[in-house]
Amino acid sequence: MYDVEKRGDKPIYEYLYMCIRDDIVSGRIKGGEKLLSKRRLAQQEGVALITVENAYAQLLVEGYIESRERSGYYAVMDAGRFAGASGSKTAISRHYKISSDVKKDVPEIADFVSQRLHDDAFPFDIWSKLMRKVLSDRNPECLAPPDPCGLEVLRYAIAGYLMRSRGIEADPDNIIVGPGTEYLENILLVLSGGGALTAVEDPGYKKIGLVCERAGHKCLHIPVNKDGLDVFSLEGTSVRLVNISPSHQFPTGAVMSAVRRAQLLDWAEREDAYIAEDDYDSEFRFAGRPIPPISASSPERVIYMNTFTRTLAPSIRIAFMVLPDKLMEKYREKLSFYSGTVSSFDQLVLAEFINGGYYERHLSRMRNYYSKRRENILKIFEDKKGDNTFTPVKDNAGLRLILKGPDWLDDDKFLREITEKGIKLSCMNDYCYSHKREYEHLLLLSFGEADEEVFRKALSVMDEVATNCRTKA
Amino acid sequence: MYDVEKRGDKPIYEYLYMCIRDDIVSGRIKGGEKLLSKRRLAQQEGVALITVENAYAQLLVEGYIESRERSGYYAVMDAGRFAGASGSKTAISRHYKISSDVKKDVPEIADFVSQRLHDDAFPFDIWSKLMRKVLSDRNPECLAPPDPCGLEVLRYAIAGYLMRSRGIEADPDNIIVGPGTEYLENILLVLSGGGALTAVEDPGYKKIGLVCERAGHKCLHIPVNKDGLDVFSLEGTSVRLVNISPSHQFPTGAVMSAVRRAQLLDWAEREDAYIAEDDYDSEFRFAGRPIPPISASSPERVIYMNTFTRTLAPSIRIAFMVLPDKLMEKYREKLSFYSGTVSSFDQLVLAEFINGGYYERHLSRMRNYYSKRRENILKIFEDKKGDNTFTPVKDNAGLRLILKGPDWLDDDKFLREITEKGIKLSCMNDYCYSHKREYEHLLLLSFGEADEEVFRKALSVMDEVATNCRTKA
Repeated sequence: MYDVEKRGDKPIYEYLYMCIRDDIVSGRIKGGEKLLSKRRLAQQEGVALITVENAYAQLLVEGYIESRERSGYYAVMDAGRFAGASGSKTAISRHYKISSDVKKDVPEIADFVSQRLHDDAFPFDIWSKLMRKVLSDRNPECLAPPDPCGLEVLRYAIAGYLMRSRGIEADPDNIIVGPGTEYLENILLVLSGGGALTAVEDPGYKKIGLVCERAGHKCLHIPVNKDGLDVFSLEGTSVRLVNISPSHQFPTGAVMSAVRRAQLLDWAEREDAYIAEDDYDSEFRFAGRPIPPISASSPERVIYMNTFTRTLAPSIRIAFMVLPDKLMEKYREKLSFYSGTVSSFDQLVLAEFINGGYYERHLSRMRNYYSKRRENILKIFEDKKGDNTFTPVKDNAGLRLILKGPDWLDDDKFLREITEKGIKLSCMNDYCYSHKREYEHLLLLSFGEADEEVFRKALSVMDEVATNCRTKA
Repeated sequence: MYDVEKRGDKPIYEYLYMCIRDDIVSGRIKGGEKLLSKRRLAQQEGVALITVENAYAQLLVEGYIESRERSGYYAVMDAGRFAGASGSKTAISRHYKISSDVKKDVPEIADFVSQRLHDDAFPFDIWSKLMRKVLSDRNPECLAPPDPCGLEVLRYAIAGYLMRSRGIEADPDNIIVGPGTEYLENILLVLSGGGALTAVEDPGYKKIGLVCERAGHKCLHIPVNKDGLDVFSLEGTSVRLVNISPSHQFPTGAVMSAVRRAQLLDWAEREDAYIAEDDYDSEFRFAGRPIPPISASSPERVIYMNTFTRTLAPSIRIAFMVLPDKLMEKYREKLSFYSGTVSSFDQLVLAEFINGGYYERHLSRMRNYYSKRRENILKIFEDKKGDNTFTPVKDNAGLRLILKGPDWLDDDKFLREITEKGIKLSCMNDYCYSHKREYEHLLLLSFGEADEEVFRKALSVMDEVATNCRTKA
């Protein structure tokens, strides 16, 4: 047992490394002797596993210990001879900190901003099984440079899924797979031409606007109302690309009306512009018929975008888009030199997941699960009828609830105080480009991670805090 | 056995789907009856596995068959009732093509352009073991949204590795992990500000120049000679970012001299500009001392970039860069809203791979392996001394050989004819922004994938073809 308290200002990792090294050099640990397993040593010293891993890694690289397959770590014979050979220790140590030292803030009641799902939702067993399968298949594609657009087998799987679930006839050769919708948006910006004007929804998904601006594109913020994007605001502009979420607008939940859709397509046709349709939430529609994507009817003007990150796990970085033929031609001409951006292994696993029917079964299980959770949450409001500070706004899709607060609520003060209580949530106005009176007193709560129990508890805190936050009339 | 020949112009996948569906509906396959495994059916019908997978996926989704855990596929009871319920088959079928139908071109003798390594080089067993370990650990990070800069555990592992192998004291908090150097270059461009002037080497790695231009940045092509970048060409320009490969310039192999390095740093300091150092080949230096990266001495002006794609497998999309403090601050302020771009699972596996000492052992094995191959290839030239049409140019690093051809060679004609013979290679002039006399008759051959036998065979074809390609004097 090493006395970690004696390490002075050295990081624990480096102190352990030095103690073990000295033991080997001095002969206290003999050449050929087996060391404690990393897990055992971490337990014994009361330190994080990563700390021991760092210490052992350093000993390994400097030749003091060796690792034997299926057995463990052993002191190297005659390792004493290497003593003093390592010169860079203090330099590393300055930058090593121990991961387990991270502090916790206020006890958290609920995080309604997070887009996480509850961990059990992820089909871990099937995913693991498919990973093992792909590993054991030793498919040569596992090691080859991936097609910049994504592996063919995945693009075909996605095309099949789009046909079955969204009625989109996507040509697999027009699909581009990337590590997220932000990356894909960047490709669209490059295809629109340097500095071309781009439009986004207001209120809307703010990151898309930021991606545009950071890439040096001017960004027009187009108002959205209950029928969706105000198409007339596009007239007379030189916008080349409009980003919309017509099936379930973020964050208002509006469904773009048939008339607006026709107007938008008309405009795009006239102006030779493109529409990027983010179908981010279409998998979670709890009532009514599915809303057909615009891309299904007008594939020559509309780019369809979606991601597996929202439906599987935020740690899985695979999104895709379907380009119209003309844009795909342009992509091939201008951007086909790009390297692939998603590891082949991950693509193969996802392809197996879709082709095996697992993805659609997973979605239907999730839909049921969240539909029930949503009902239970709505029931909380019903149960205390008449006594609600906040009331849910009708919306049939998505893993978010919109709550309407009282007119007298000081939104800013409320947000500040509720954060201090350990509840994270956002206001509709957070997603507005310019502050809008019509979106005051509207709160947005994701319930992907928070179940009804958390919701009930949070709601009573919210009610309490709200009464302290009356605006001065 | 279904007669695939009878499918008409239907894709095989759809034909199989229809046959099996009809068998189920008509009762030839009874409800509850087990179907052949996908592999068996593929064998029996002599079709690709993916074809059967596509057929079964369609049957699954339409509810004709069901999959039972660890058992296989079964016809669904009363599936006949669903008959005719599927309306979208012809629509899908139009887009489904059979992956196994891909045609082969001319028989290939050698591909010296590919940056692939030979497949056995990848440490498949250890990688698989670590994947299984990460899966069984069920680390919560596996499912959480990854830090946009990369998981902390991976950034620490990379920092340790950089210290040990390149003498770089990288702060893990200044490391950004991405799916490739092109992606990271795009981040640097955004940080340089919209439309800022960027410099690249000429000759050089052309993709970087293209990435700049596509992102709307003007690109200055700065000449390189045997001492590296011609720093004086930067004077009086408004360049904000210079992309260089000083330890082993691509493609000339030049090592930037100490004087040039000092000049470049001076210039960057004066102009408040940054240097992006691509250290792409430093792992494969076969003779002499390692060339220290510029970042090791001047971390405040130099961005260090490297990738695991070149040393592990081109299918693994993980690269990284180390930002100077000031740039990192700017990144946090402007770009920290970006989502992570590499799946957490892959990051955890790589972190285990580095921390377990496997990466450095893998590199040293690779270095030995390729050093031997390189010697053997050079010996081919020595052996037929005096009778060489092409002679290797001295260079101590990297997985490429530069061959000097005779002065009378018509490079263009040679490249055309050699391609027709099934040998892929490139000329130094392919990497020049403007054609340069001094780089005529220089060929570039990657030997990562091609061993000495392939090389020997290719070389005799090259000698033969060359004699047909004399320039008209």
